[in-house]
Parts: sequence; C-alpha cells; structure tokens
Amino acid sequence: MLLYERLLVIRARRGATPAADAIEAQRPVVIAGFGRFGQIIVRLLHAKGVDATVIDHDPGQIELVRRFGYKAYYGDISRIDLLRAAGLERARLFILAIDDTATALATAKRVRAEYPQVRIMARVRNRQDVYDFMRLDVPVIVRETFGSALDMGEEALKALGIGAYRARRIVQRFRRHDLETIRHLYPHHQDEPTLISKTKEAREDLARLMRDEGGTPLTDSDWD
Amino acid sequence: MLLYERLLVIRARRGATPAADAIEAQRPVVIAGFGRFGQIIVRLLHAKGVDATVIDHDPGQIELVRRFGYKAYYGDISRIDLLRAAGLERARLFILAIDDTATALATAKRVRAEYPQVRIMARVRNRQDVYDFMRLDVPVIVRETFGSALDMGEEALKALGIGAYRARRIVQRFRRHDLETIRHLYPHHQDEPTLISKTKEAREDLARLMRDEGGTPLTDSDWD
Repeated sequence: MLLYERLLVIRARRGATPAADAIEAQRPVVIAGFGRFGQIIVRLLHAKGVDATVIDHDPGQIELVRRFGYKAYYGDISRIDLLRAAGLERARLFILAIDDTATALATAKRVRAEYPQVRIMARVRNRQDVYDFMRLDVPVIVRETFGSALDMGEEALKALGIGAYRARRIVQRFRRHDLETIRHLYPHHQDEPTLISKTKEAREDLARLMRDEGGTPLTDSDWD
Repeated sequence: MLLYERLLVIRARRGATPAADAIEAQRPVVIAGFGRFGQIIVRLLHAKGVDATVIDHDPGQIELVRRFGYKAYYGDISRIDLLRAAGLERARLFILAIDDTATALATAKRVRAEYPQVRIMARVRNRQDVYDFMRLDVPVIVRETFGSALDMGEEALKALGIGAYRARRIVQRFRRHDLETIRHLYPHHQDEPTLISKTKEAREDLARLMRDEGGTPLTDSDWD
C-alpha cells in the first residue's frame, strides 16, 4: 500500500490525472529499470512516439531522468501491487531492464503467473542466466554486454583489414550461431562436462562455417 | 619482474616455446579482460582464425577459459612490464575489455604514450566515460550495455507491431544519431546545464528525424 501511495503522490506532483487506470491504458510498455540499459530503450521508443511506464527503485535516478524530460516512477518491482498500479495487466510488453538478475527472475516468474498475456523481455548477465529465463519461456532474453561486445568485435575485424560489409556479415553469422548454440545446449545446461565438450564442438562448427562463408579466413599474410 | 616471471611460468606450463618474442610476433591483437565482454571478442576473432593474446587478473577466470580451450595469461594490466611481455609493441590492436573503467583509462593513457602506433579500443560504462576516452583520442569507445539495449529495443519495436526490416533501420538511425550527438556535445561535456538542454534538443531532432524517415510514428491506433 505504501508503495502504491508513493506512486500516486509522484503522479500527482507531476500534475497527471489521479486516475491511474486512465493514464496507464495508453501505455502498452512497462519498463523496470531506468539505468543505462533501460534509458536507451525508453529513448528509442520515445523517438517512435511510444511512451513507456518506467519504474526504478533509485529516487536519485528518477530525479535525474526527470531533469532530462522523461517520466519515471519510484518503486520496488518485487511488490506486485506496484506492478498492478503501473498498469501491467493492460500492458503488451514488460521489459525487465534492471541489473539485478535474481530480482528480475523472481519478477518474471510472478508476472508469468499473474499476467500470462504480457510479453516479457529480460536483460540478463550471462549465459547461465539465459537458461534460467528459458525455463520460464521468456521469449526475449538479452545478455547485457553481448551486443556491445559484438559491436567491438566488428570494429576489431575492420581494424584488422576486413571490409565493413564483410565484418557486419561475420558478426551477424556469429550472433546467429551463438543463439542457436544456446538453444541447442539448453538440455545440457546443468551438466558441466557435457556443456564444455559440446561448447567446443559448437566452436569448431562455427570456425568451419566461417571458413565456408565465401571469404577466406584471416591468416598471417593478411597483415600488412 | 614478478609478474613477468609469472607470465613466463604460465607459458612454460602450457608447453609453449620459452621465447616470448617469437610467440607474440604472431599475435596482432592483445586483449585485456577475459570476462563476458572479452570472451565474445576472442571467440569472434578465433572463428576468423585470429588468435589474440589475452590478459586477465583473475586466475579463476583464466583457469575456466582454459578448460574451454582458449589461451589466457594471468596478470595486472596496470603493470607496463606485463604489457611489454604480452608483445604490445608489435600489436596492431589493444582491446581494453575490462569492466574497471578507471584502470582502463589509466592504461589507455600509458599505452597511448609508450606505444603510439597501437590502435586502442575501449569498453566503458557510460557516456561520461566516453568523453574521458575521447580526450585521449581513443578511436573506438564502446559503452558496455549500449549494443544490447539497442538489441532489446529492436525486439520491443517488433513486439509492438513494427516489421523486422523497419525496426532494424530505426535502430541503426538511432545509433548513428546517438553517436553523432555525443561527438557534438563533447565540447560541453563538463557543463551540465548546457549538456542537459542540448541533450533535449538532440532528442527532439531525433524525433523529427524518425517522423520524417518514411514510416509513420507509432500512435494509439497502431495497437490492436
């Protein structure tokens, strides 16, 4: 109740109408976490005219982002009453953009159970976390540094003399192969020895795939 | 000296030849940091036949990754003798993939001064860090969660009914605009009020750009 009231207080201060239902009916996206990760998504959606309902548990962060002109609500997403107040039952999409994977997983479990119609997307730390969310059938699971690491890998390939178009294609292929490998290894994810040997196999498959993809692999003679 | 010796010891255990120079001459890439971020880059390069010299300060991590079949050296990158031992003076590329931005910045400064011919790429946490590395003229600076946040944003657009091709194009435009904005705001990065007002302007520019990009912005009538 306390959190729900806080949420309403913040809304009232912002001069929004006091009827939570009316406000939230227009917001098909609820995002938990307005740190570096969530902010990018909110800005991207905002640029396309989609306003999201944002929840963050850090009042300083909320204050900061308001100064930049975005809307955000203060609260703890492990409280189901807050999620209800944020209009989750009418949301199309619930984005877990927080950096605390354990809380995200517990919240995903609960939202899956209480609002099965809401599509969930989750930010996670590592591959093991991916398996944890796969067990809940969460359809979009994104490792928080995977995309940037691939971006830097693409820059590295270009710095080593590979053309921009080819570097992009190599990275796309790597990404696809990595996601397929995760799906393929899911049945073995609690069996470390099998996981390791199958991961090695997958890596060799990938190297073969890369050798076969038209371009030649880089060798010493490619360095200038 | 101690670290240098450790490095040689680890190499000797692995059965490599004892001549550090001979080994490293074949490795045009040195990567500091073999966590989640560095591993992806190493795997990508490996798939294209490029073996990198990897340095990490966590012996457990080194041990783990060896079990998966990769080469990694134990050491503290703030020691210049270790960087020398790793063959940095003959490297084309030095990738700072560690999660400690302060150490990365100090190392970049030193490498810039001692090995000006080596191209540096840096993983950073946030936009402010980008400015710090821009001051050193580091040519590739990647925010560690930016790429994954965009990946998830792309998935969110698709979940809201935007076609895959258009969602991809929107994200590419957003990314380009964000990088241009950072460059544009660089002269003001230590002046918070100007930074905030110019950031708002840039956001409005982006919204205009998105409205003009052919497709219509999403509106309420787009929801089903």
